[in-house]
Amino acid sequence: MAGEFELIDRLRQQVQSHPNLRLGIGDDAAEVLFGKNKTPVLVTVDMLMDQVHFDLANTDPRLIGRKALAVNLSDIAAMGGEAIAIVVSYALPKGAGDHGTGDQLAEQLHQGIVELAEQHQVAVAGGDTNSWKGPLVISITALGQPVGPKAIERSGARVGDLIFVTGELGGSLAGRHLTFTPRLKEARELVNNYDVHAMIDLSDGISSDLQHILRESEVGAVLHAEQIPIHSDARRSSGDRSPLEHALHDGEDFEVLFTVSPEDAVRLTSHPLLTGTRVTQIGEITAGSEPFLIDQGERRLLTRSGWEHSL
Amino acid sequence: MAGEFELIDRLRQQVQSHPNLRLGIGDDAAEVLFGKNKTPVLVTVDMLMDQVHFDLANTDPRLIGRKALAVNLSDIAAMGGEAIAIVVSYALPKGAGDHGTGDQLAEQLHQGIVELAEQHQVAVAGGDTNSWKGPLVISITALGQPVGPKAIERSGARVGDLIFVTGELGGSLAGRHLTFTPRLKEARELVNNYDVHAMIDLSDGISSDLQHILRESEVGAVLHAEQIPIHSDARRSSGDRSPLEHALHDGEDFEVLFTVSPEDAVRLTSHPLLTGTRVTQIGEITAGSEPFLIDQGERRLLTRSGWEHSL
Repeated sequence: MAGEFELIDRLRQQVQSHPNLRLGIGDDAAEVLFGKNKTPVLVTVDMLMDQVHFDLANTDPRLIGRKALAVNLSDIAAMGGEAIAIVVSYALPKGAGDHGTGDQLAEQLHQGIVELAEQHQVAVAGGDTNSWKGPLVISITALGQPVGPKAIERSGARVGDLIFVTGELGGSLAGRHLTFTPRLKEARELVNNYDVHAMIDLSDGISSDLQHILRESEVGAVLHAEQIPIHSDARRSSGDRSPLEHALHDGEDFEVLFTVSPEDAVRLTSHPLLTGTRVTQIGEITAGSEPFLIDQGERRLLTRSGWEHSL
Repeated sequence: MAGEFELIDRLRQQVQSHPNLRLGIGDDAAEVLFGKNKTPVLVTVDMLMDQVHFDLANTDPRLIGRKALAVNLSDIAAMGGEAIAIVVSYALPKGAGDHGTGDQLAEQLHQGIVELAEQHQVAVAGGDTNSWKGPLVISITALGQPVGPKAIERSGARVGDLIFVTGELGGSLAGRHLTFTPRLKEARELVNNYDVHAMIDLSDGISSDLQHILRESEVGAVLHAEQIPIHSDARRSSGDRSPLEHALHDGEDFEVLFTVSPEDAVRLTSHPLLTGTRVTQIGEITAGSEPFLIDQGERRLLTRSGWEHSL
């Protein structure tokens, strides 16, 4: 497969502009305008496949359904949006092994989806259920609307902005990738109280996802190694990576990274979020086009060094 | 798998009502309200899988992409809607056989989608491209808005209404299922000029799809065998079925079936559609709950006798 940047560029070229499309391919969600009032609707889709994004044989199907929804809600959060409704499509394996019939599997997946949907007041609006001889595939499309007057894009970061992340990073694949809380409440609180310039959710790791903001905003960045909030899972993770490397490069944290002005950064640092979720300043937006990491006094380029997805 | 009615009932029970969900599971598309003006948005999803809905080894991938979009546009048409935007998710086989790499396959599928999208002024708003060892899966979610003041539901048929279909029916699997024109233009013209009471698209065959209208509208129906417009493909189709049986039971016609008052029926019969698409009166809505067919003077129950999908 081509690199993600290359693919995004090619798809962008293929599709024409459209009067109802305010924001298309290349952000966490698209923004489409409806009706004579041009009401904005956020829309995003994620497909999860057995043996790529989860391991059906060794996972509670309710957690798989939950994750399929959670990754979509994370995208809506990253737009500064609230989620309104979803539609789900399934390719269900005939004879689902330990999970019984395809129908029983569907019921368990659906249960995981409905539970998380209710927690976030999201309507399950429809679906398409298919059965086949192949492995389980589940695709969810989430619809939302901006909490504020407009969606928060990747392209809004400005030189001098400070960079923040929610939560703690790294080692998600030890289990958190199935149980994380999409940051909808945090995004709402941030958008309602601060002028968030740019935001993205961390699906591939900071070293990869930050580059989307830099590219779309045409800026550079400096991160400070000692400020990166490292999750205890990253310290427990085995392998060649240090805990810091896990925090920088591991995928599937599904925290949000965002930038605000220095004035808002001061306020934000002294006012904890009402949700209790930690918010940490990790660096600043600079002129240039590349991300640097300052680690023990040394400044080096932060490269996208092969993030890990589940499995 | 459970029957379609049973599954719909079970899913309906599982999901709670939601203030933004005007119309949920059980119609061709859901209707969700956005923004303070409660702007209605139609949303529908269809997933197509290799060896279930198409045969990748023997089909131009552009036609597969086209079909994946067309079935969704047909659902929007059946709601009396215009399509505005879509998102697409792919599971692409690694090494796509005769179709080259996964990337090359994606490009061809996408080409088929974009061409049909442009014909109907639909924005390709986003997507999720994945690669795996399994067979090709495409899921498309289409967003639309009602052409008239409200969407046309399955539940609006009234006793005394006359039943119409667009086009000609049967034998679609000989090839038309890959190249059919979704009836968006026809639906727009009908909604703009007539009070369409109920509408559905014919994906499983009249004998199956008409029952959805009867069930949701709590009515019965009588069809007249000699009025059913039989496609020439149905006459050429081999197998045990007569041409009429093909027209009644074959899946994937993707025409629309709708009901209007007797007054509108008279007008409609004497005014051909501007698109040139044939519109045929095939029966009437009655009291009761079941569909009957009058064939050569005999009246018998129209049963859902095992529709055929492609492959």
